[in-house]
Amino acid sequence: MSVVVLPLPGNEAMAQRIAEQSGFDPGRIETRHFPDGETYLRHLSPLSGRSVVLVCTLDHPDAKLVPLLFAARAARDQGARRVGLVAPYLAYMRQDRQFHDGEAVSARLFAAQLSADFDWLVTVEPHLHRISSLNDVFTIPSASIHAAPLLAKWIGKTVKNPVVIGPDQESRPWVAAVAERLNVPFLVADKTRIGDREVRIDLPEVDGAVDRTPVIVDDVVSSGRTLLELTKLLRTRFDKRPVSAVVHGLFVEEAYAQLRSECAAVVSTNTVEHDSNTIDVSGEIAASVMPFC
Amino acid sequence: MSVVVLPLPGNEAMAQRIAEQSGFDPGRIETRHFPDGETYLRHLSPLSGRSVVLVCTLDHPDAKLVPLLFAARAARDQGARRVGLVAPYLAYMRQDRQFHDGEAVSARLFAAQLSADFDWLVTVEPHLHRISSLNDVFTIPSASIHAAPLLAKWIGKTVKNPVVIGPDQESRPWVAAVAERLNVPFLVADKTRIGDREVRIDLPEVDGAVDRTPVIVDDVVSSGRTLLELTKLLRTRFDKRPVSAVVHGLFVEEAYAQLRSECAAVVSTNTVEHDSNTIDVSGEIAASVMPFC
Repeated sequence: MSVVVLPLPGNEAMAQRIAEQSGFDPGRIETRHFPDGETYLRHLSPLSGRSVVLVCTLDHPDAKLVPLLFAARAARDQGARRVGLVAPYLAYMRQDRQFHDGEAVSARLFAAQLSADFDWLVTVEPHLHRISSLNDVFTIPSASIHAAPLLAKWIGKTVKNPVVIGPDQESRPWVAAVAERLNVPFLVADKTRIGDREVRIDLPEVDGAVDRTPVIVDDVVSSGRTLLELTKLLRTRFDKRPVSAVVHGLFVEEAYAQLRSECAAVVSTNTVEHDSNTIDVSGEIAASVMPFC
Repeated sequence: MSVVVLPLPGNEAMAQRIAEQSGFDPGRIETRHFPDGETYLRHLSPLSGRSVVLVCTLDHPDAKLVPLLFAARAARDQGARRVGLVAPYLAYMRQDRQFHDGEAVSARLFAAQLSADFDWLVTVEPHLHRISSLNDVFTIPSASIHAAPLLAKWIGKTVKNPVVIGPDQESRPWVAAVAERLNVPFLVADKTRIGDREVRIDLPEVDGAVDRTPVIVDDVVSSGRTLLELTKLLRTRFDKRPVSAVVHGLFVEEAYAQLRSECAAVVSTNTVEHDSNTIDVSGEIAASVMPFC
């Protein structure tokens, strides 16, 4: 079956790279907004009998869902035989149970919506807490690309004599995997969350690593509070300025500018388009997409 | 079954009025946005075994759909027996067929999504073109409140010696209904649309109505281009400054300020919250909701 890769707005560069690396055809969707805020969407590529790969990263997800559903359903109306979703960043995976009565379990609800409209899902390093696998919430087949090897590769190539730093206990297995690949030590901080935007950070004492360059790794940076606090703490413990290497750089508000002022470098993968994008994941995405098409 | 009326953000005043006029219980939903743009939603009212009325007007619909779906599905998770939607303004009813290959037929797609999540729908004067009834696109029972009587009542009470003006041929039956109720003459303009924002307006010659006050009625005002052009034309034909009475006042960008500068008055119903709201439709909504609960 012939395969076509279609970007939702803002995902053109990633879709182009995936098409190049998979050999699939690049295609186009026309979208615009009417003055009243409604979305117009039109498939410009022939889709009848084809396998369709929609590319839409899902940071700031609410306004993106309607165009995405229109694109998926209109593709089926045009005769597409399979419609899959590449969401390099997958939203709404944090609220995976009710902490208080009446709460919307958004991880489950959002996953149910995507499962209803797509045949398969490919994403990168989803931010799962208590969910052990995407299969717990998605009813469609999915593939999660692990970013630890990509971050390890970039660190190994770029930073001399690193020590890998994890921002919270949750990150421990992930941080350990990066450090192990590099055969370097690692440290994991203790994070106490005080509201949506405030955190307190503690770090174990550093033995024999003080001459190394601390490299913070994290799966997602949003307000950047955690990384900023951690960075400030690292500057009191290490001689060298820290480096931050993250998977998904959401960097809301002043997060990026603040981190840049404290760090020697701030880099991210290109799962969310941003000035800090340094690590390309399109090859891994292309490889994961191919078995589904 | 006991009934609870719950507003999505921005719909608190309408929900309160519906609850007062129906005798149903008012309830509350907590919502907030995380710094990364994800929505947190929690039902604060007991919903188990109850009939739930969600109130959410759907201007600028894309960002509203996710919270609305979370609210509906979380209500069912809490044990609600029925979940209905009051959308005083209903979006996406214009694109009701493919004008070009590959277009998303958003009226059908949006209606299918709401039909999947709600048991019934109440709206006011949906902007249907080629669709003759909401039943053509919704698979759930629905009620459409006709606004012509409400506009006629307001005009009759407020404007002496009016002539009712329709902005395009599509509005003819609607304008005729308003004029008939008032027992006054009406005129219908010819509109030629040139792109999303530009229109040309022609009006038949006025016989014996030149001393009347022209009252433009329309179902929805978005960019306001049509009404503004019509208003300018009316000022060359009538001595008295026109009045504009519309159902759904979206008034994007400078639409309201521009219309106000040309008109003696610009009024709307409270289906979309706006400074121009003068005509209350909550009583009619309450009456239409009751049979569904």
